[in-house]
Amino acid sequence: MTISTRLTKRFGIKHPIVLAPMTPASGGELASAVAAAGGLGLLGGGYVDRVWFERESAKVTRPDVGAGFITWTIPEDPGLLDIALERHPRAMMLSFSDPGPYAARIKKAGVPLICQVHTLDHVFRAVDVGADVVVAQGTEAGGHGWAVRSTMPFVPTVVDAVAKRAPQVLVLAAGGIADGRGLAASLMLGADGVLMGTRFWATREALIPDAAKAKVLAATGDETIRTSVYDIAHQRFWPPGYTGRLMRNEFIEKWQGHEKELAATAAQELKKIEDAQGADDFEIANVTVGESIGLVHDIPKAGDLINRIVAEAEASFSRFSSSAAAA
Amino acid sequence: MTISTRLTKRFGIKHPIVLAPMTPASGGELASAVAAAGGLGLLGGGYVDRVWFERESAKVTRPDVGAGFITWTIPEDPGLLDIALERHPRAMMLSFSDPGPYAARIKKAGVPLICQVHTLDHVFRAVDVGADVVVAQGTEAGGHGWAVRSTMPFVPTVVDAVAKRAPQVLVLAAGGIADGRGLAASLMLGADGVLMGTRFWATREALIPDAAKAKVLAATGDETIRTSVYDIAHQRFWPPGYTGRLMRNEFIEKWQGHEKELAATAAQELKKIEDAQGADDFEIANVTVGESIGLVHDIPKAGDLINRIVAEAEASFSRFSSSAAAA
Repeated sequence: MTISTRLTKRFGIKHPIVLAPMTPASGGELASAVAAAGGLGLLGGGYVDRVWFERESAKVTRPDVGAGFITWTIPEDPGLLDIALERHPRAMMLSFSDPGPYAARIKKAGVPLICQVHTLDHVFRAVDVGADVVVAQGTEAGGHGWAVRSTMPFVPTVVDAVAKRAPQVLVLAAGGIADGRGLAASLMLGADGVLMGTRFWATREALIPDAAKAKVLAATGDETIRTSVYDIAHQRFWPPGYTGRLMRNEFIEKWQGHEKELAATAAQELKKIEDAQGADDFEIANVTVGESIGLVHDIPKAGDLINRIVAEAEASFSRFSSSAAAA
Repeated sequence: MTISTRLTKRFGIKHPIVLAPMTPASGGELASAVAAAGGLGLLGGGYVDRVWFERESAKVTRPDVGAGFITWTIPEDPGLLDIALERHPRAMMLSFSDPGPYAARIKKAGVPLICQVHTLDHVFRAVDVGADVVVAQGTEAGGHGWAVRSTMPFVPTVVDAVAKRAPQVLVLAAGGIADGRGLAASLMLGADGVLMGTRFWATREALIPDAAKAKVLAATGDETIRTSVYDIAHQRFWPPGYTGRLMRNEFIEKWQGHEKELAATAAQELKKIEDAQGADDFEIANVTVGESIGLVHDIPKAGDLINRIVAEAEASFSRFSSSAAAA
């Protein structure tokens, strides 16, 4: 038995599981491994320079890989999107701010457009610019997003909105999904599949230092928080509404609530962060993961993980079926 | 077919659906209607005086109803808990702060203890004091709670923690669940059932003004927010960590971020709130509901609602089963 959905049929993939295009975690090796295992692999394209992107793009071993970008940073090097459309045309995902300026280019290239959404207004905008897939992401997700909605109520709301406005558009659930129970639950909510970040962040192929992965393995899901302090230190001026979910650490404890003071000394603090990254000191450097770290207990290969998640989801369905039949 | 779980078996109920003991929404009529329809009805006991509680208790038409209290406000009139244990012994729910001081009394009365939890520490404490059921509530829920966790990742985390520590304890999912898709998803996550507040708040039996219900029907799930401004106006000094999710309105827009100024003029603002309640002005008076208002499109009878939700959940399961079988 496999789990067949509109997503698996539309994209010709085996499992309704999509890799979030995280940077730097989702490099060429991870994106390829997800695709090889029957999921949809998306190469990370946000917050990376051309050297990184060219290198990781070259590591992609398959034609059926896509990519994803932080929409508002595309102007920093618009050529990266062209490279991605040419080399990794399986799908192009746009996250964070208006997809409008790039949608036509992606659609014209014949590449399926995936838009991440955080509110109903985002959904309507994505549909209007021609999204083939919307990713309904809750606040429990790792990394950037809006804090307005959570996955459990947001996904069915988006499913209903899309069904009414553009029923051909697919909906993926994202945020807080890290095992087969989350996949099964997302399908019950009406999603066509899931997009997972944190769970793939904690795989062998992810381009993340082992010490950071070890820190996540030892943590519970209670230990993350939404914050802007690293954005301030990096002087990355995100559009209004966006914060990032990360693991709590000393740096966040120090600066959360003191953002103005941090802005005044940003360059100095950024130096400390960069030094800490080199020294595997994740009390100062950031660990960008979501609440689902509470469900992450190992660092498997991505392909083994996908097989396990699908088996778990099938077990979740069966457990209920027999329970219902017995009633 | 009915949906049978450990909850339905343990409590001898037909459906794995529990009414949140909201005040003032969950009066005697609503709690009785939920029980009559095969769910578990809990009479509200928080923030109410003896006159309200005696009146609503007298309206309960069945012996199989329970009740629920805000733990830290019990000392304001400890006799209410005694009345509840005597008259509504089907289950006693404690929410918000340490259940320790009251757990023994409830257990000694032979009444099942339900504890609401918002973090893993809460789970461990509830299990230690003898909880029979824990309610894992995400930040998307209406009313008070902690903002640390969301339902999708929190429920399976609690399921795992309880399975390891006290496998006889049941787990309910709460927060963002308002239809059969949410019920089905919660069961996939490993929950034994769901506790619903907002969805029952919007039923005919709920003790809520029609104008407030109409406001909710017209809203999307994007229009709620966590805040403390009404607690400040009421000079209700909640323990650290607790905020409430409510519908955004003019009062919140005015005071959110200006809590100190509000505290200085609390009595005056409370008068305005009370006047507004009398005048059905919900731009000033509070409407205490969660994100799932985006899934609420009518004001049915509670019994009809329960039947609809169970049918929807069964349809969600079937939809997947046939999809999987077709693969």
